[in-house]
Amino acid sequence: VKEIDIISALQASIDQSSSEVIVPIGDDGSVIAMNANKQLVTTTDAITVDIHYPKGIEAKSIGHRCLAINLSDMAAMGASAKWASLVFSMPSIDSKWVEGFIIGFSNLANESNIDLIGGDTIRGPEFFAVSLQGYVEQGQFINRTNAKEGDLIYLTGHLGSAAYGLELIINNNQNDDGQFIRSFLYPSPRSKEGILIAKYASAMIDISDGFYCDLRKISSELNKGFKVDVLTLPIEPNLLEQTSQDKAINLALTGGDDYELCFTVPEKHEKQFLDELTSEFDTLLTCVGQITDSKELLIAGNEGYALPESTFEHFDS
Amino acid sequence: VKEIDIISALQASIDQSSSEVIVPIGDDGSVIAMNANKQLVTTTDAITVDIHYPKGIEAKSIGHRCLAINLSDMAAMGASAKWASLVFSMPSIDSKWVEGFIIGFSNLANESNIDLIGGDTIRGPEFFAVSLQGYVEQGQFINRTNAKEGDLIYLTGHLGSAAYGLELIINNNQNDDGQFIRSFLYPSPRSKEGILIAKYASAMIDISDGFYCDLRKISSELNKGFKVDVLTLPIEPNLLEQTSQDKAINLALTGGDDYELCFTVPEKHEKQFLDELTSEFDTLLTCVGQITDSKELLIAGNEGYALPESTFEHFDS
Repeated sequence: VKEIDIISALQASIDQSSSEVIVPIGDDGSVIAMNANKQLVTTTDAITVDIHYPKGIEAKSIGHRCLAINLSDMAAMGASAKWASLVFSMPSIDSKWVEGFIIGFSNLANESNIDLIGGDTIRGPEFFAVSLQGYVEQGQFINRTNAKEGDLIYLTGHLGSAAYGLELIINNNQNDDGQFIRSFLYPSPRSKEGILIAKYASAMIDISDGFYCDLRKISSELNKGFKVDVLTLPIEPNLLEQTSQDKAINLALTGGDDYELCFTVPEKHEKQFLDELTSEFDTLLTCVGQITDSKELLIAGNEGYALPESTFEHFDS
Repeated sequence: VKEIDIISALQASIDQSSSEVIVPIGDDGSVIAMNANKQLVTTTDAITVDIHYPKGIEAKSIGHRCLAINLSDMAAMGASAKWASLVFSMPSIDSKWVEGFIIGFSNLANESNIDLIGGDTIRGPEFFAVSLQGYVEQGQFINRTNAKEGDLIYLTGHLGSAAYGLELIINNNQNDDGQFIRSFLYPSPRSKEGILIAKYASAMIDISDGFYCDLRKISSELNKGFKVDVLTLPIEPNLLEQTSQDKAINLALTGGDDYELCFTVPEKHEKQFLDELTSEFDTLLTCVGQITDSKELLIAGNEGYALPESTFEHFDS
């Protein structure tokens, strides 16, 4: 497999769906038609072995993940993702491995209507960087700065499953039907949900570094606090069967790799928000707390809850 | 130096000059206002140690190079570069090194009026990926597909100096006043020239892999050949003093890392092109050949010229 073949094969596996692409991949740059009613949104995120995933996981997952983490960022802006560029670096080329990578990347690209518009292939360290462009209608983006005291803190999906899956992979644990390992290997970016949630949310972030860590990014941006009841965190019932409640809560708070959305909704819009969104998708929506004017506070029911000491020894960096 | 500090320090060193940036760096993604009279141009290119540059070159050069190679791609599209995102990966953080990198990157960003709109910092291999967005006025981009038989092949600047500089660095050669080593460490992307040349060029590419290799990309895209007189290649007089003519021609044809522009101009527009452009900038413009309908041909004066055997053992990959 020659350099150029990887990007060409990837391109051939992805339906080029966007009529806005004027000059496609293959030149010095790509050219895209613009629409003045829209605003451009750009994200960039990279993954590398031993930092973001353990050595030896399947190539298909790596292809999926490097695109998924960018789709998740785009969702957290409330934006529609459209055009991806990939920097693909591997020390040597194994055609079976490359095939797996291509399947993982292109399946997710096709599901998400993403065009590949740029590529750079390097014989270097195992390293994959994706840059993604997309758009929002004028002013319809959601950043982290507009939440107010009293706004409700909501989450999509479940927390902690991916971090537990990573533990199973690292410990080479076979006592698993694959559910948690799949959560780690194939995160589902909340692309459709992000766009709909953006109509109601006052702030939004995707959970890549762990719920507690990412919520603190919102609260420090706002200069506000939060009060979260850890007993309301959406944890898979199966995870509570396999591990203690304390462990599960710790994974949910600090585990990372969930790629769920954390967002705030003004209390007065909650009913309308729930009515509309629960009719649009089945993804679980859970209220876990509220933005406060004082300092951050984790509670369990009515009692205080202290984070375990080891909280910040996180695999990711 | 913590992760976030590198990107923050870089951002603080770069004048944020673009009024189109609605949401700057620091959120999940950045938001840019669009203009329907313009088309978006995107490039992405990465560099890593031992592949694109030898271990131990100064950090300032690495910061400069990772942005410069993308600016060069943007210039080859005839586009104005505007917004950069950086993936910064290093195994460990040395604050002196980071400072050098920031100076190299931000000096070039400020000269080029580039805003930093995205960043991802990783404790991983020494690897730097940049994604760059910019624009052209409607339809004013130059790709590789419109050159015709008879169009003249032009080059900006000089060829071979950067490749010779790289040899000097690798051989730890001190018999140099620094001119050639500087050519390798601090390539000057032809940003201003690219936009002006685009008014006349029928095809354009930047020379990163070596003139012969990059010219073949244009000719294979066109399904045409070319005839180039290697004695007309623009080689620095100083380079001809330091090495044989054969060696200098070989460096100019195949050395790479020049980041000059190679472009074609219809013969009937040549006079107007030269009149306008030589009044706009001092950069050397040299005609070295012509697009032909037959196969590619290198000549030296009136005689055939054969590429040396070792042509494709290139440092870059």
